[in-house]
Amino acid sequence: MIKAGIVGATGYTGSELLRMLAMHPEVSIHAVTSRSDAGKPVSSMFANLRGFVDIPFCSPDPESLVDCDVIFFATPHGVAQAMMPSMLATTAKLIDLSADFRIKDQHVWEEWYQQAHASPELIDQAVYGLPEVNRDAIKKARLIACPGCYPTAIQLGFIPLLEQGLIATRGLIADAKSGVSGAGRKASVSSLMAECADSFKAYAVSGHRHRPEIEQGLTQAAGEPVNLNFVPHLVPMIRGIEATLYAPLNAKGLNKTMEALQAVFEERYADEPFVDVMPLGSLPETRSVKGSNICRLALHKQANSDMLIVLSVIDNLVKGASGQAIQAMNLMFDLDEACGLSHVPLSP
Amino acid sequence: MIKAGIVGATGYTGSELLRMLAMHPEVSIHAVTSRSDAGKPVSSMFANLRGFVDIPFCSPDPESLVDCDVIFFATPHGVAQAMMPSMLATTAKLIDLSADFRIKDQHVWEEWYQQAHASPELIDQAVYGLPEVNRDAIKKARLIACPGCYPTAIQLGFIPLLEQGLIATRGLIADAKSGVSGAGRKASVSSLMAECADSFKAYAVSGHRHRPEIEQGLTQAAGEPVNLNFVPHLVPMIRGIEATLYAPLNAKGLNKTMEALQAVFEERYADEPFVDVMPLGSLPETRSVKGSNICRLALHKQANSDMLIVLSVIDNLVKGASGQAIQAMNLMFDLDEACGLSHVPLSP
Amino acid sequence: MIKAGIVGATGYTGSELLRMLAMHPEVSIHAVTSRSDAGKPVSSMFANLRGFVDIPFCSPDPESLVDCDVIFFATPHGVAQAMMPSMLATTAKLIDLSADFRIKDQHVWEEWYQQAHASPELIDQAVYGLPEVNRDAIKKARLIACPGCYPTAIQLGFIPLLEQGLIATRGLIADAKSGVSGAGRKASVSSLMAECADSFKAYAVSGHRHRPEIEQGLTQAAGEPVNLNFVPHLVPMIRGIEATLYAPLNAKGLNKTMEALQAVFEERYADEPFVDVMPLGSLPETRSVKGSNICRLALHKQANSDMLIVLSVIDNLVKGASGQAIQAMNLMFDLDEACGLSHVPLSP
Amino acid sequence: MIKAGIVGATGYTGSELLRMLAMHPEVSIHAVTSRSDAGKPVSSMFANLRGFVDIPFCSPDPESLVDCDVIFFATPHGVAQAMMPSMLATTAKLIDLSADFRIKDQHVWEEWYQQAHASPELIDQAVYGLPEVNRDAIKKARLIACPGCYPTAIQLGFIPLLEQGLIATRGLIADAKSGVSGAGRKASVSSLMAECADSFKAYAVSGHRHRPEIEQGLTQAAGEPVNLNFVPHLVPMIRGIEATLYAPLNAKGLNKTMEALQAVFEERYADEPFVDVMPLGSLPETRSVKGSNICRLALHKQANSDMLIVLSVIDNLVKGASGQAIQAMNLMFDLDEACGLSHVPLSP
Repeated sequence: MIKAGIVGATGYTGSELLRMLAMHPEVSIHAVTSRSDAGKPVSSMFANLRGFVDIPFCSPDPESLVDCDVIFFATPHGVAQAMMPSMLATTAKLIDLSADFRIKDQHVWEEWYQQAHASPELIDQAVYGLPEVNRDAIKKARLIACPGCYPTAIQLGFIPLLEQGLIATRGLIADAKSGVSGAGRKASVSSLMAECADSFKAYAVSGHRHRPEIEQGLTQAAGEPVNLNFVPHLVPMIRGIEATLYAPLNAKGLNKTMEALQAVFEERYADEPFVDVMPLGSLPETRSVKGSNICRLALHKQANSDMLIVLSVIDNLVKGASGQAIQAMNLMFDLDEACGLSHVPLSP
Repeated sequence: MIKAGIVGATGYTGSELLRMLAMHPEVSIHAVTSRSDAGKPVSSMFANLRGFVDIPFCSPDPESLVDCDVIFFATPHGVAQAMMPSMLATTAKLIDLSADFRIKDQHVWEEWYQQAHASPELIDQAVYGLPEVNRDAIKKARLIACPGCYPTAIQLGFIPLLEQGLIATRGLIADAKSGVSGAGRKASVSSLMAECADSFKAYAVSGHRHRPEIEQGLTQAAGEPVNLNFVPHLVPMIRGIEATLYAPLNAKGLNKTMEALQAVFEERYADEPFVDVMPLGSLPETRSVKGSNICRLALHKQANSDMLIVLSVIDNLVKGASGQAIQAMNLMFDLDEACGLSHVPLSP
Repeated sequence: MIKAGIVGATGYTGSELLRMLAMHPEVSIHAVTSRSDAGKPVSSMFANLRGFVDIPFCSPDPESLVDCDVIFFATPHGVAQAMMPSMLATTAKLIDLSADFRIKDQHVWEEWYQQAHASPELIDQAVYGLPEVNRDAIKKARLIACPGCYPTAIQLGFIPLLEQGLIATRGLIADAKSGVSGAGRKASVSSLMAECADSFKAYAVSGHRHRPEIEQGLTQAAGEPVNLNFVPHLVPMIRGIEATLYAPLNAKGLNKTMEALQAVFEERYADEPFVDVMPLGSLPETRSVKGSNICRLALHKQANSDMLIVLSVIDNLVKGASGQAIQAMNLMFDLDEACGLSHVPLSP
Repeated sequence: MIKAGIVGATGYTGSELLRMLAMHPEVSIHAVTSRSDAGKPVSSMFANLRGFVDIPFCSPDPESLVDCDVIFFATPHGVAQAMMPSMLATTAKLIDLSADFRIKDQHVWEEWYQQAHASPELIDQAVYGLPEVNRDAIKKARLIACPGCYPTAIQLGFIPLLEQGLIATRGLIADAKSGVSGAGRKASVSSLMAECADSFKAYAVSGHRHRPEIEQGLTQAAGEPVNLNFVPHLVPMIRGIEATLYAPLNAKGLNKTMEALQAVFEERYADEPFVDVMPLGSLPETRSVKGSNICRLALHKQANSDMLIVLSVIDNLVKGASGQAIQAMNLMFDLDEACGLSHVPLSP
């Protein structure tokens, strides 16, 4: 059994890791850290884990984690990069769910996160943990930077088009919508149910931290700089991201039928265990992936338009965070990539 | 007092009309028709109206309506156009909340609504009831075609830009989101709470009936054909529409600062009682207009982008339907335009 | 115009007071205090008030409030009782929406609220602001203690039975359910949407602060000590309280038919502008009173049972707080009791 | 592998059976019937099943089902009892999730369900499928009548007290609350999201069909007739039942400390894989069992009261329906009782 440690498990990505690892046949949960809750049973904070995770929180000291085979960081940005040097002294594989190592350009990271990077020398070493793009590198990696939730949903929708050179690289639009768990499990007025429920809004319209991460991935797929308008919105639901992507077809793309564009997607993801290219014209709902690691995609085009519309849905806490982290872990430990990740989505 | 009749009041626009008319100081509710519920107290169907609307439904015969000064049609499409000839024999002013007379091109209407138009000779006579565009015509009209909910939110956001020639007329995008009351009050599996709640999806992506109506209005504002991509989405909330509009600035538009673009909006709507141009960079929430006739707008632009982003929110049942109908009625009867419409939005 | 001041308007009862006072024809909002937000426009915090309340927050100094004719306290418990001596130096009428003066027995208050009472000498002077019980006293009062939200819904349901001696005074049960706005507008993990939505739970089952307040009112109605089991629950909705009351009929009560019991309620509330005794067997929904000052009641009895079941619904922020406060204000200023309170509930 | 057939899989208990059986290691889904949808892929109706259940619906003919080892009926009441004689000709074990065989007194059944029973001769043979009560009988049964959702939550909370004679057998109260999936997946105005969301109500207060089923089970536990007041309520959430039970302690019960009463529950359920007796004073939330077969219970008593309060939560579609059916199947086929049922609840 792989001994897993989770640093900072009091948030939603942490508790989701615990939920999924508790059902993983090859993993035992060895250490769950929380400085403020050390000593308290994990299940006293997360009642759904009663009977499944029966250990207490421990403090996030290196000693607590030294025996782990894999350590997950489900911490706010800044924490993993500060702890990382001491963690490298262990033998554990390291999977960071935060934003600390996602952006390859240190200055861009520092500009968007408004702080100096604490471990810039590790940025190069970190592998961006999107298996659909970096599978081989993930297998060999010591340190994984798990993609953000919006970046996962959006990149998977644009990448086949950019790789094949079928769309412009300027004027792309990602109109994305997230459930409230994306804001994290921390006390805040703006995330109160009385503030969020029965309402809808755009936020961070002038600039969201996920934009440079997405553009980095799209640029890599295209082989040239990609420019994206990215507008996130808050949906009064708990889990799920939907991204409606507007991709301006170029001459090569306009030459293709919708069936041919569909084939591009189907071929690109033919061997992917967690990407479902739905039939042309489908309308994916976020609930169709709730609690699962699946991304579902569907293509559309409106009459008298040059814009390909790609719909993409994921569970922000699973394929957008903890499930993707476990998928990377499976690859790193040479397990079946889908091991412990084959839950049927919960619906209704 | 103006005697009002409502035809087809068993849906959400009908019940919302009743709610608002019951508080209107110049109106008495004279007849509320429903063929299937004739004789039953209106308040037995809509408990919120107990103590406010104390008459029974009557059958939708011309006799029931003959004394009315104004007749509202809150019926599915096809009904008002079939009844209209007999209604013209009364002296009542006629306000149709359905889609029957919104589209000026009969063939476009028939194509999208898949039926022959029953009163094509009245299409020209009908005035499109968007006061921000057609105020004077509304005042003199006999027959009003109330704009749809999406068209209201979207046109109000694009019109100032098109009128001033600041954006391209092709490649416009309206990514719009609606609460579930937009689907109406009729038995259907897809609108069940267990199907809609805690989930999010796009729908009618290949083509929605509101698209030609919106393009018609935008084309009129631009003075040349406007082409729009329009993707509606279903939000797990009851009321509200949010539209995120992507407007590709042309050379003239790119020459303007954001402050100048903001000024364009502020001047365009300076005298409008129900359009609130919020400060630059604001993030309008649908709950900020819940139960009210207000449309709130806000402008944004992202770094390194030529796209102006306009955020627009309305209450789909008020400014998107019943409130707008009453605003038109106020104009037609030479009342203060805001009479009976000055409710503070309900929040939280 | 009555000049109104609101102390502590950054919570939900405060913003609801502002919403309703902004529509009140006899009131002008004169001062809205918030120590931490002084200087900021009120509408920058509550976007629904944009265009309706256009003054900034001021600091809660006596000078800010000295010109007011009426001062509302929408503050956490402990604040009003500390400020009250200086407020009594003004000429304003004083309406406290907090729990500070609701409980007549100082020691009971101190036990449940775990602090010493700061103005015990004022407890006797304060009038419990339930118009259905204390109308005449309210008219003459200087200081009103507004009832809590649960106490309003529950007392209105039990009082007719206790006044007529139709039920036992021991073994009463109030199983009550509240929307999340009842928890207030303060940062807290347990009130996050991701924690509350799509779930249901009982809370404070071992003892809730509203229990002694309710028992005090029921005891007064019965003329003898009344003992109540009171279990509050949290409903994933924003506004509304539903209380399902189990009233053990005594011999006198069992002698009455349901029609006779119904008549007891109808007579008790015949002249009440805000209590709606629905027809026997009705099923009141909280949405039927949303945004309004109405309490709706309905009676039931199951086969082979001695228990009368009373269903009671209110909007916790209106009849359970701010609307009730305005109702008291209307009485204190000799206005029509329903002035500014006749909004039709918002539904759907 | 056990070959399973599901009759009537287009509702929520049917789709939940499919979700859980698709993850069951000892079961293959052999036939899924729907008369109206025969030929359509199951996953075209339930998008969450895409990639997990890849067969089409078939018509509900005996031939479709003849090879099955177990047949589940997820049909409206009346259907299973009509089909049952022909089903008995197969060799399959039969598990009925509907109400057809739950009530042992044919006349009581016919009175509450308002129709003649189609297979009265099978009522005696059917075993009430509550493993916590009937484990041995279930193992040997041919035909299982799965308990209803409310009856499961309520019986598990009262049974330990009645078996030990600690409470009165008259005046029991079950104030129960259910998510909207309990109303089923059928077109109906009253279950629309715009009708249910952001609201709360009691329903069927004068008498609900689950009352006689619950009283039958409680009477069996007590060994004497038990009389219950049962009030169901509709919660604006998808899944989950919470029951707040008021149990009037008798002299024997009042003699016990809370710790002793807690011990009664812990002992009663010590070996139960799916009943979690939480620590004294706990507040179970429905989300703590979402998607799982667990029932969580907690005990409370208020000061100066003789009423023991038991809180009980289940997922109405799992322990209240499909999970319980699979638990029975596991017993019938001599599998580990928890086989395929050990999912960690999904939270948040």
